[in-house]
Amino acid sequence: MISQAISFNMQPITLAQAIARVAPADAEARRRAEARQLRLTKPPGSLGRLEQVSVQLAGIFGTENPRIRGKAVIVAAADHGVVAQGVTGYPQAVTGQMVQNFLEGGAAVSALSRLLGVRQIIVDAGVASGIQDHPDLRRLSSGHGTGDISRGPAMSTRQAQQCLTAGVNLAVEAARSGADLIAMGDMGIGNTTAASAIAATVTAKSARETTGRGTGRTPDELEHKVEVVQRALTVNRPDPDNPLDVLAKVGGFEIGVLAGVVLGGSAMRRAVVLDGFISGAAALLALLLCPATRDYMIASHRSDERGHQVILTHLALSPLLDLRMRLGEGSGAVLAMPIIEAASACLCEMATFDEAGVSDRDQNEAPAESPSR
Amino acid sequence: MISQAISFNMQPITLAQAIARVAPADAEARRRAEARQLRLTKPPGSLGRLEQVSVQLAGIFGTENPRIRGKAVIVAAADHGVVAQGVTGYPQAVTGQMVQNFLEGGAAVSALSRLLGVRQIIVDAGVASGIQDHPDLRRLSSGHGTGDISRGPAMSTRQAQQCLTAGVNLAVEAARSGADLIAMGDMGIGNTTAASAIAATVTAKSARETTGRGTGRTPDELEHKVEVVQRALTVNRPDPDNPLDVLAKVGGFEIGVLAGVVLGGSAMRRAVVLDGFISGAAALLALLLCPATRDYMIASHRSDERGHQVILTHLALSPLLDLRMRLGEGSGAVLAMPIIEAASACLCEMATFDEAGVSDRDQNEAPAESPSR
Repeated sequence: MISQAISFNMQPITLAQAIARVAPADAEARRRAEARQLRLTKPPGSLGRLEQVSVQLAGIFGTENPRIRGKAVIVAAADHGVVAQGVTGYPQAVTGQMVQNFLEGGAAVSALSRLLGVRQIIVDAGVASGIQDHPDLRRLSSGHGTGDISRGPAMSTRQAQQCLTAGVNLAVEAARSGADLIAMGDMGIGNTTAASAIAATVTAKSARETTGRGTGRTPDELEHKVEVVQRALTVNRPDPDNPLDVLAKVGGFEIGVLAGVVLGGSAMRRAVVLDGFISGAAALLALLLCPATRDYMIASHRSDERGHQVILTHLALSPLLDLRMRLGEGSGAVLAMPIIEAASACLCEMATFDEAGVSDRDQNEAPAESPSR
Repeated sequence: MISQAISFNMQPITLAQAIARVAPADAEARRRAEARQLRLTKPPGSLGRLEQVSVQLAGIFGTENPRIRGKAVIVAAADHGVVAQGVTGYPQAVTGQMVQNFLEGGAAVSALSRLLGVRQIIVDAGVASGIQDHPDLRRLSSGHGTGDISRGPAMSTRQAQQCLTAGVNLAVEAARSGADLIAMGDMGIGNTTAASAIAATVTAKSARETTGRGTGRTPDELEHKVEVVQRALTVNRPDPDNPLDVLAKVGGFEIGVLAGVVLGGSAMRRAVVLDGFISGAAALLALLLCPATRDYMIASHRSDERGHQVILTHLALSPLLDLRMRLGEGSGAVLAMPIIEAASACLCEMATFDEAGVSDRDQNEAPAESPSR
């Protein structure tokens, strides 16, 4: 059950309502943005990826003037029963300790959010250890960590649905309180194991192709982790056509919440900024639940975690940054936000050739000066 | 001669003085920053390139607490006689028109600087057309465009020295007025031709390897441009061991100013943020004048202009961004500034494991939970 500690400005919406509300991006606004890019004072295409992002934002916000007013990062944390299999080097207590660190502003995502003007929304989606109350903490009572996926399902279908619905409403609330960019972040010792199992199921790749070193596995430890992911797939047989089944069998509470964030952000026509491997796995589930969410996704960075590229390829997304980061927490997504804002600023604020009185190429090139033509 | 329109808070310094003042980065501060990175609440190395940049900043600023207070971009503009050879599609008047656009805030670098809190310093380093006075404009009286490098030298050795000295003092002034990050930007119709000639000379590559499409040459036009660059090298025979000779023979006024900016920024122990191809050519000259400047250079992005990778390889720098941009103006350098600030913020502001009460790996991993060990 979702605790009362989540407050909504308005009535919560259901998963089905969110899915029904996701519309494709506005093709007409995209065309107008593309046309405007050609009139801005620069050689056509010379702003590269920034131009593409600006056109995507136009399609998402439904205007060729896609201004970004507010930014938020939703960091969902939960524990994973599979840590009993020795798939990670950090003790499970770190999940809760890091949530405390987020709330106190000492984590990487906290430092980055402060620097870049991003509102942190921290979610206890099912952490094993108790976390003290804090005004910035949202609590879901999903449970105190998932079941061990190498021995059975992570959670019930009902719990999976609850996580998704909670994520939808967290994104709706973030959007209503002013966030035009919504970043996804995760914390959960053991969650790369769950994400690898999800990625292998949805993309039809092997456990080996989707399993990486996480926080720092040695080659031998990685071998063991691959075996655990394989066992999770064999024991649970998640149905690749049924995202709810995949989440319940081999997922994680925080991954369900983040998949819901994609749905809720898309339903509200906000840009959803993916982080790395874990939020990528959540995006795979969201895409299965509702293919139109893809129009709303921006891939912030390529994580150094093996398997992230498999996810990005499946999502057909190209990341903005490639800085060999592999931290999670939403750190990559928050870091990419100024790039996305820059894309918006160039489209919305640059002068056109006409406005600035700058000569454009076609009208002015004197043939005598172009012997090569 | 340098016009009186450049005002300095203190006496201008000479080129020789600047070179003498450039000291290697502080190795002890780098070591302390590296040690601190290992105590911060994250798996070691998980912030990837951000950790490397933070350590570089520590070495530059001489402290393991390398905070960034202010940011500036010095955009130098000048014209190029070689446009008479039809190497570009835009009329020469665009250089001056774009300077006006910078001053009025309508260019890409203006929109980005406004968004990201970067002070724009616009420099007329030798524009052919007259530019109206403006409080933010600095004027050098280098001349109204260089000579046509396909027929003779770009400028006199004395002019080359004046440009470098002016750049040194512009960077010194930016540093004294609070900029800890100094970005380099350029504007000059025809300047990719000069930069290609400089890059070919300094890196000992062919004109073909260092010449690209600029603002948008067709394959035939590119062929012609390569021939013009080759002719500039044959006619002038610049001495690759003498940066002043290279600048005078095949350079540009703005390129000389930007090489001076690298020297001045390094002398003041500030981080100098390179933009794309033109500022890369300027950095090649600065490195020849003073090898220790390399410690102070940060490569912001990989430009889509062919030849930029040749320059980055020669400088042994790896860019932070790769967004297929090819605009110049300092647009890539300004865009990378929040990434550099993020690197600083993580090092300076994140909590350590001890401070946050978060369990670190080595002390806590229970062997019973690690069957793979």
